[in-house]
This record gives sequence, C-alpha cells and structure tokens, in this order.
Amino acid sequence: MNTNPPTAHTVKSFDEDLRQLRLLIGEMGGLAKDQVDRSVAAIVARDADAAQAVVQSDPRIDRIEAEVEQLAIATIARRAPLADDLREVIAALKISAVIERIGDYAKNNAKRVNSIAQDSPIRPMVIVPEMARIVSQMVDDALDAYARRDPELARDVWKRDNSVDEYYNSLFRALLTFMMENPHHITPSTHMLFIAKNLERIGDHATNIAEVVYYSATGEHLTDRQKADETVYTVSEDVEGEQER
Amino acid sequence: MNTNPPTAHTVKSFDEDLRQLRLLIGEMGGLAKDQVDRSVAAIVARDADAAQAVVQSDPRIDRIEAEVEQLAIATIARRAPLADDLREVIAALKISAVIERIGDYAKNNAKRVNSIAQDSPIRPMVIVPEMARIVSQMVDDALDAYARRDPELARDVWKRDNSVDEYYNSLFRALLTFMMENPHHITPSTHMLFIAKNLERIGDHATNIAEVVYYSATGEHLTDRQKADETVYTVSEDVEGEQER
Repeated sequence: MNTNPPTAHTVKSFDEDLRQLRLLIGEMGGLAKDQVDRSVAAIVARDADAAQAVVQSDPRIDRIEAEVEQLAIATIARRAPLADDLREVIAALKISAVIERIGDYAKNNAKRVNSIAQDSPIRPMVIVPEMARIVSQMVDDALDAYARRDPELARDVWKRDNSVDEYYNSLFRALLTFMMENPHHITPSTHMLFIAKNLERIGDHATNIAEVVYYSATGEHLTDRQKADETVYTVSEDVEGEQER
Repeated sequence: MNTNPPTAHTVKSFDEDLRQLRLLIGEMGGLAKDQVDRSVAAIVARDADAAQAVVQSDPRIDRIEAEVEQLAIATIARRAPLADDLREVIAALKISAVIERIGDYAKNNAKRVNSIAQDSPIRPMVIVPEMARIVSQMVDDALDAYARRDPELARDVWKRDNSVDEYYNSLFRALLTFMMENPHHITPSTHMLFIAKNLERIGDHATNIAEVVYYSATGEHLTDRQKADETVYTVSEDVEGEQER
C-alpha cells in the first residue's frame, strides 16, 4: 500500500500497525454480521432469550471500536504515515464507525422481538428472513472486500443494494395492507416495519463500506451516479416509494 | 489546546488549520440545523416545493464533509500533530460524519411530505413541531458547545435527549391509536412514525456530538452510565416502550 520508497523499518512498523487495525476490524465486522443473523433468527423464532443475548453482546462491538480508534491515533502519532497510508488509517476509522452502527441496528431489531410476539402470525414476515439473508451476505462480502482490498467485490456489494430496497418496498406495502385488514395487526406490523427499515439501513451501511473500499483501491467514487440522482426530487426508495401507489 | 511546549511556528500553523476545520464544521452544522428546521416547516405546511428545496440542499452538506476530511488529512500530514492535537482532528472528522447524518435524516423527512399530504389531518401531528423545536435546539447547542469547547453546555444537551424520547414515545402511541381508528389513517401515519423516528435519531446525533465535545474537554465519558444500562435487557425507549402497554 506504500507507493513511496520508504525505509524498510518504517514500512514494517506501519504495516504491522495496519495489519493489527485490519484484524480488529475483521473481528468487529464478524461480530456485527453475527448479531444481524442472530437478531433475525430471534425475530423469526420469537425467541426473547436469544434476543436478549444479542442485546447483551453489543457492548463488545463498541469496545472494539474504541480499540480501533486508540490504535489508529497511536499509529498516526508513532509512524507519521504519508498521505496514502494516512488515508488507509482514516478509512479504518470510518469503517469501524459503520460497523458499530450495523451492530446498533441489529440490537434495535432484537429489542423488538417482544413487541411482535403474539399469537397471530404477521403474514408479510416471510419476506424478512430472505431480505436479511441478502443483507447479511452484503455485510460479509463488504468485509471480505476490505480484507482482500478487492474493488470488484466492493462494486458487486454496492450493486446488490437495489435488491434490498426492492424487498423493503414490497414488505412495506404488504405490511400496510396487513394493517388495514385488522386493527390488531397494527402494533406488531409497525415494529416489523421498523425491523425491515433497520435491515435496509444495514444494507446501506454495507454499501458504505464497499464505497470506502472501492475508493481506497481505485481512487474513484462508486457514488457519483447516486449522488447526482439525489439532487433531483423524485419518488425514491428510501421513502418506500409510497407516492407511486 | 496544545499542552506540550512546541515551537510558536508549529502551534500557529496547526492552530490555523484547526480553526479552518472548526469553521467548516460550523458552516456544515448551521446548514444541517437549517435543513432540520426547513424540513419540519415543510411537513407542517405540507409544502412540496419547500420539501424539494431541502432535498436539493443536501449535497452541499456532503461536499463540506468531503472538505473536512481532505483538510483533516492534510493537517495531519503537514503538521504531524501530537496526541492531544491529533485527537482534536479526529474529533472534527467524527463530528462532521454525525452532521452529515443529521442532514440525511432531514432530507429523508422532507421526502415524506407528499406521502402525508392528504385532506384529513393527522391529529397526533401537533406533537411533531414541538419535538422538532427541542431537537433543533439540541443540534444548535451541541454545535455551540463544540465551537466554545463548553463541556457544561454539552452535558446539558446530553440530558435533554430524555425529553425527546418521551415526545417520541407519546407520538408513537398516539399514532398507533389514530391508525386503529380508521384504515385510511394507516399510510400517512406510518410516514409520520418514520418522521418522528428520524427526529428522535437527530436528537441522538446531537447527543453524540455533545459526548465527543465533553470527552475532548474533560477526558471523561458522558456515556458510561448509559452504556452500563444497555447491557440489561429492559423495556427501552428506542423500541418505543411498546411492551409497557
């Protein structure tokens, strides 16, 4: 990653710090992905104990984020890295902040298990595990792309976000219809809406990681096209496309 | 902010960079607070044009965030700041990322204006402007605390988050009741739920800024007590306290 010819000693020390940063991020990311999977499993099974275990595991992710920050600051202070290397350290900080948020969304979903645990099943919920499977795979692949510095895998993750948005939009519509059928469906369906929204945001965050990885590897932004679209006021996935109905 | 005795020249150069970073963050924060206010005004007035203007202003915030990142990296590379100063630069990066998210939530809220624009008023909506006023003031004061390095103001912002959560919880309950009265209320009320949730998250983000400011100024964490609570699985505001009903 070092494009300038520094002394072997400097490179080795910095590389060792960076390797350690990447290890921490790998560990943190693995935990967050695990939290996503376990929270969805708890929701599907309506298992309050499993949900509680997810909530209780969240501080571990927060602790690793604090370690990443400390190590990043120590690395910069000790090694005074040049521009490209410095960018790598900053990227590690950004990615760890994103992973922390993924963990938060998984925790928030787990906390909703009690609110959806009632006798009558929420029919549209069948879409949730499939949506969660795609999102969890995106998180996994974004972390892989980071570990392997693989811009093609990062771009692939980035593209998959559209299908998450489609799942979310159909779930949103299905849940609204389900709520209209019977007032008793309203409370649990509202929690399912937030669960689905959180999954959609986890997908967005996997996409954010992919963007950082792609930019680090290529110097180009994956987001330019998206950003341009956002300046136009149109029906947009992130408001559930409800205006289309 | 420099506790070690460096040369006057080094201090002056670094201080100038830091001053520039803080100016950018002040500008960015002012814009984000403005977006929050304008999005809520558009929602209350159901003014699609005003909402569109909010959506179109969002990329300005993103551009300043990119400037902050570039300047932060340049500052570290040029000045090789010592530990305390380095922490200040990293804090600036973190705060700019949080402000960007506040802008995103305001934009997302603005996009929902069309979805709530229908003839029948959403009665529980009267709570929204009041909740928004508190949240907007929190953002303003968190930025002030940052500009003035004022830990007491930061702690004050942090405390106010509880009242935002209370507003959110009452709005959540009121909206559910409103939905149960009439199926036609369900779609617009769902969007109002997301709007309220976004406001609540903006309050969380103002709290995050306050935490960073407090830690920078005192070396102590405002969050220790909160963090300890989170490890216990209880009814919690961020799942709307629905289990209590």
